[in-house]
Amino acid sequence: MKVALIGFGNVGQSFTRVIHEKREMLRDRYDLEIELVAVSDIVKGSVLDDDGLDVCGLLDLVDETGTVEGYRGGVKGLDGVDTVRRTTAEVVVEATWTNLETGEPGLTHVREALGSGKHVVASNKGPIALAYRELTELASRKEVQLRYECTVMSGTPVLRTGVEGLAGHRIDSVAGILNGTTNYMLTRMEQGASYDEALREAQSKGYAEADPTADVEGWDAAGKIVILANALMDADLKPADVERRGITGISLGEIREATEVGDRIKLIARAERVGGEVKTSVLPTRMALEDPLWGVTGTMNAVTYMTDGLGAVTVVGRGAGGPETGHGLLSDLLAIHEATA
Amino acid sequence: MKVALIGFGNVGQSFTRVIHEKREMLRDRYDLEIELVAVSDIVKGSVLDDDGLDVCGLLDLVDETGTVEGYRGGVKGLDGVDTVRRTTAEVVVEATWTNLETGEPGLTHVREALGSGKHVVASNKGPIALAYRELTELASRKEVQLRYECTVMSGTPVLRTGVEGLAGHRIDSVAGILNGTTNYMLTRMEQGASYDEALREAQSKGYAEADPTADVEGWDAAGKIVILANALMDADLKPADVERRGITGISLGEIREATEVGDRIKLIARAERVGGEVKTSVLPTRMALEDPLWGVTGTMNAVTYMTDGLGAVTVVGRGAGGPETGHGLLSDLLAIHEATA
Repeated sequence: MKVALIGFGNVGQSFTRVIHEKREMLRDRYDLEIELVAVSDIVKGSVLDDDGLDVCGLLDLVDETGTVEGYRGGVKGLDGVDTVRRTTAEVVVEATWTNLETGEPGLTHVREALGSGKHVVASNKGPIALAYRELTELASRKEVQLRYECTVMSGTPVLRTGVEGLAGHRIDSVAGILNGTTNYMLTRMEQGASYDEALREAQSKGYAEADPTADVEGWDAAGKIVILANALMDADLKPADVERRGITGISLGEIREATEVGDRIKLIARAERVGGEVKTSVLPTRMALEDPLWGVTGTMNAVTYMTDGLGAVTVVGRGAGGPETGHGLLSDLLAIHEATA
Repeated sequence: MKVALIGFGNVGQSFTRVIHEKREMLRDRYDLEIELVAVSDIVKGSVLDDDGLDVCGLLDLVDETGTVEGYRGGVKGLDGVDTVRRTTAEVVVEATWTNLETGEPGLTHVREALGSGKHVVASNKGPIALAYRELTELASRKEVQLRYECTVMSGTPVLRTGVEGLAGHRIDSVAGILNGTTNYMLTRMEQGASYDEALREAQSKGYAEADPTADVEGWDAAGKIVILANALMDADLKPADVERRGITGISLGEIREATEVGDRIKLIARAERVGGEVKTSVLPTRMALEDPLWGVTGTMNAVTYMTDGLGAVTVVGRGAGGPETGHGLLSDLLAIHEATA
């Protein structure tokens, strides 16, 4: 299986390391040999070689020099779009950064890849949250797979559980803690930290960006609940359609009031059927001990599916991280391998 | 897809009802038409018609008369084995009762079905817990599918999550609350009920059998942890290999001691690698608030997979019930439909 990788930051490098470290297991257990034939990154540079790249060399090189420009051989300097156009890879892995307003540059990469009959595995939420219908229809028309497990809770298999594990069920609602940064901050505030202290801690631990807006204002969770609603509840929504209130307005007093009676305030992303429509929201919500999401603390994430056949099914796991997402991208590649074997 | 159903008790009838009630959705969403061509049950009787049975009529009949013998048309009186031999079904659903000592009569049904090139979906733990290697190898040799999601946590997709959702991960350990009856009893004992009161309540609510040995002595959970260990950790174990201690010896004092400091005693089924081997146990275990299984109370069940790529991934859901298992059997049929499409 020839793979082109667009985006060679933390996630892209983790993915590369995982497929290298696991190559024997992949051969033995899944009869799969993954060959990386292109890497393209706006900062780290780009190299394409249809005969396969030396993965170890590439990782060492970017570690030492910060770029892949020094790689011996291959075609250099192609941007993401040109890499997708030129590569003979069967699968394009899209691991560039998320932009929930335009979806770019990922959206163009995914469109180009699917349009030219390549499977796509995306960790980038932007294209999937903004153009779900267009992209899934394009994939179906071209008879290729579009997989995006890593867009929600990194590699924790929540989409696969919803789509395949719960096949045949009607999913009536989805409720989730889909942002680890805010869940960490709320947990710290329960323990007495102020909002500013909790934010500074989250930033110093690398959970929150210097500009934390996407997390604390609920945009990140909004992108994810839209993906879940579209994929599992036949909705056709965009992040801007989500009723959204972040955690910036929550006072320590409110949190104390909840914890005093054993409740917790969580930033809950929700999708539910109201009349004939699917309504989505991201709102600070008071949860009782009985709720399966109550115990999900720190940076952990979780999703509860309410189904007609099984009642509540909850998946709890990590929601972020380079190695986690790298592994998740591999799980998606294996799903494609299985489906096309 | 022609289906023969062996076992027409609570689970078998629920399955039949589900495929009938969901026939439009199955056609629209999955392009699947399921035709029931045989039913065989040691108590309710048996009928086989290669042209398809009238599902509504069959359900009404068994409701009214307690047997299918009055069904008009079809071949009557075949036992499970003869039904499997005679039917032209592509899939055999095995939903007879679990026997964790011999696996029978299910084991013979599954062997016969796979041996004659039929896919098998089993809710019966016996054959899978006792003859996992033999049956999966037979299925692989015959190029048919053997699916058994409902053997662990009824239809809650824990096996599919482990095998497919976590594809590419190494699963280092599995820990679960796999028996709803004992979890309910422990929850009630936390609330002050004595063991005998808790057992009587569980029996009156239909959670526990008149003879509760399989639940309270941990046999049921042992069968399930063996299935998980064999399917996800390449083990080759049988229920008798499991270190096992049930909940009969737990005193209210022990429970109170735990709850006083915020802990809980749970009956935990565990599989872990020790040296080169997989060790399994079912033991009353004290859990702290931080453990993802701590909050799983009442009849709910859960499994935590410890993985190399994602850390802990936990799935929480119901662990028993006719309608739940009926839905789970359908999910497995859909997986076969997808894999063979």
